[in-house]
Amino acid sequence: MAALKNKDFCITILGSGSATPAPNRFHTAQIVSFKGQRILLDVGEGTQYKLLLYDSLSPIHKVLITHVHGDHILGLPGLFFTFSLNNVERPVHLYSTPQVIEWFFIFKEWLTVPLSFPVHTHVVPLDKKTLLYADREMEIFSLPLRHTTAAVGYVIKENIPPRKINPDAIRKFDIPYEQLKLIKMGYDAVSRGGKVIPNENITYQNRNPRSYAFITDTSYVPELAEYLKGVTVMYHEATFSGQQSEEANLTGHSTAVQAAQLAKQAQVKLLLIGHISSRYTEPEELVKEARKVFPNTFLAVEGLKVWLEIDKIWLQYPDGSEFSL
Amino acid sequence: MAALKNKDFCITILGSGSATPAPNRFHTAQIVSFKGQRILLDVGEGTQYKLLLYDSLSPIHKVLITHVHGDHILGLPGLFFTFSLNNVERPVHLYSTPQVIEWFFIFKEWLTVPLSFPVHTHVVPLDKKTLLYADREMEIFSLPLRHTTAAVGYVIKENIPPRKINPDAIRKFDIPYEQLKLIKMGYDAVSRGGKVIPNENITYQNRNPRSYAFITDTSYVPELAEYLKGVTVMYHEATFSGQQSEEANLTGHSTAVQAAQLAKQAQVKLLLIGHISSRYTEPEELVKEARKVFPNTFLAVEGLKVWLEIDKIWLQYPDGSEFSL
Repeated sequence: MAALKNKDFCITILGSGSATPAPNRFHTAQIVSFKGQRILLDVGEGTQYKLLLYDSLSPIHKVLITHVHGDHILGLPGLFFTFSLNNVERPVHLYSTPQVIEWFFIFKEWLTVPLSFPVHTHVVPLDKKTLLYADREMEIFSLPLRHTTAAVGYVIKENIPPRKINPDAIRKFDIPYEQLKLIKMGYDAVSRGGKVIPNENITYQNRNPRSYAFITDTSYVPELAEYLKGVTVMYHEATFSGQQSEEANLTGHSTAVQAAQLAKQAQVKLLLIGHISSRYTEPEELVKEARKVFPNTFLAVEGLKVWLEIDKIWLQYPDGSEFSL
Repeated sequence: MAALKNKDFCITILGSGSATPAPNRFHTAQIVSFKGQRILLDVGEGTQYKLLLYDSLSPIHKVLITHVHGDHILGLPGLFFTFSLNNVERPVHLYSTPQVIEWFFIFKEWLTVPLSFPVHTHVVPLDKKTLLYADREMEIFSLPLRHTTAAVGYVIKENIPPRKINPDAIRKFDIPYEQLKLIKMGYDAVSRGGKVIPNENITYQNRNPRSYAFITDTSYVPELAEYLKGVTVMYHEATFSGQQSEEANLTGHSTAVQAAQLAKQAQVKLLLIGHISSRYTEPEELVKEARKVFPNTFLAVEGLKVWLEIDKIWLQYPDGSEFSL
């Protein structure tokens, strides 16, 4: 059992199947818990049951949906229905493509319970990487994907200052404490003696912020590597085996090998693959393919918890087995 | 293992939970297989997964939906989505209240796949018992229920002639074979000698037709007993314990005791109860209450198969245990 410190960033896989269901492969849904916020990534049919089973039906802060296809959205009416029966009052921020936001307004009308909570809708730009949300703890970005309909990926990133103050240097250069906030923000300092001290002399490079990228459904888009550089964990769809790369391209999907190529280019630490077509009864075969290109590839199985700790990534499987990196 | 003969009428419980989900209690859905037809009764969220797990994703002939509340309908878009991705072509007959049929036309528009099969919609009358369908093998009736919104129950009944020909009497009275069809329909016969032979002298009472009643969501409606007289198996909602009869009445639901009272009045052979509120963590307690009034009460657990054989009712649980009556 890993230490409890830094257990503030966790992804739980609620469903990782493709468009048609396969045994034990529900449609796409994940819940990210990060510093007290609960963020739902896609809401395939059955999400509410899987939340109850692997996580909880506590209120959600944000819902980020990639695109309008049924296997990514059909759990939302039922979840909102249950929240309303439970008198949830916390506002929900819903981010997605224009099609999904429009659909939300349609189902809100036919749902037979009035929503018990306000929903703030956010239409995500489809043309470029966009900062959607920022607070002291996190930033959330969207990325345009390439699918048969408008689709976006998301990155949830820890918000930490790029440089950290060196207390020894502060004492050495005799810098007044009032300046610490500005120094953290990157400004140079002025000593009590009136001397300008460059920021880099009194700070050092902070650790890399932890981050999680959720990329589905999409063709292989090599240019994404630039946006995803240094991401800690990336979930990337791998609907097809490498042998079906033409079919992948025609249907706006990726192969396991392409997911691994992107992980390698972006130098992520760990790759989760999912959305594997129901035709593959042994999805581990696709993991094997991907590992030839990117060894730290794992299958996003239902109930898997991925903890992003400061110094390691810790995978906890529903059967009790564990793995850390 | 029971004999395979007469295994032509089977109900499989796909979900039996109430409005908010509880562990292992998915929203309401059942599949009835009868003489080669597949009939879906309500389509709670997750129906497609449960079909895959306990039955199959083969095409469905009929969908009978009781009412428009989310926990009875939200699995339909996903099921139709999957059927369309699988290129199912068999027409589906959808029976329900005007609200559900209207909702079908709404979601048909926003579903991102065109339906691969035709859907024949049938608006069910809300004011009286109605014959919805009849063929040589079965009849399907609807019954008005009493809920917070328009709701109907359904009875699926084997179609057999009420009287059976007695071959010995046919020989004895020297009746020409050409008359057998008319005799079966209830007409008197004329012997070769020109004598009129009353129908009851050459026929005998046939066995009772097997039938299944699906009654949810509703308050206790004692007048239903008349319509349900002699039904073989009745599923009846039992959202509340007997202690909550006032709450049951206010919310348009029944208690386990009321379900049992109706079963007793209607002289059904076996009562299945379900739709038990998520507040009851031990639903077996409600079965105990019901059994005091109607001993042959059983809980509709997920994966339970109820076989209506000609001479017995056979319950087959997903854990392999069995019971017959």
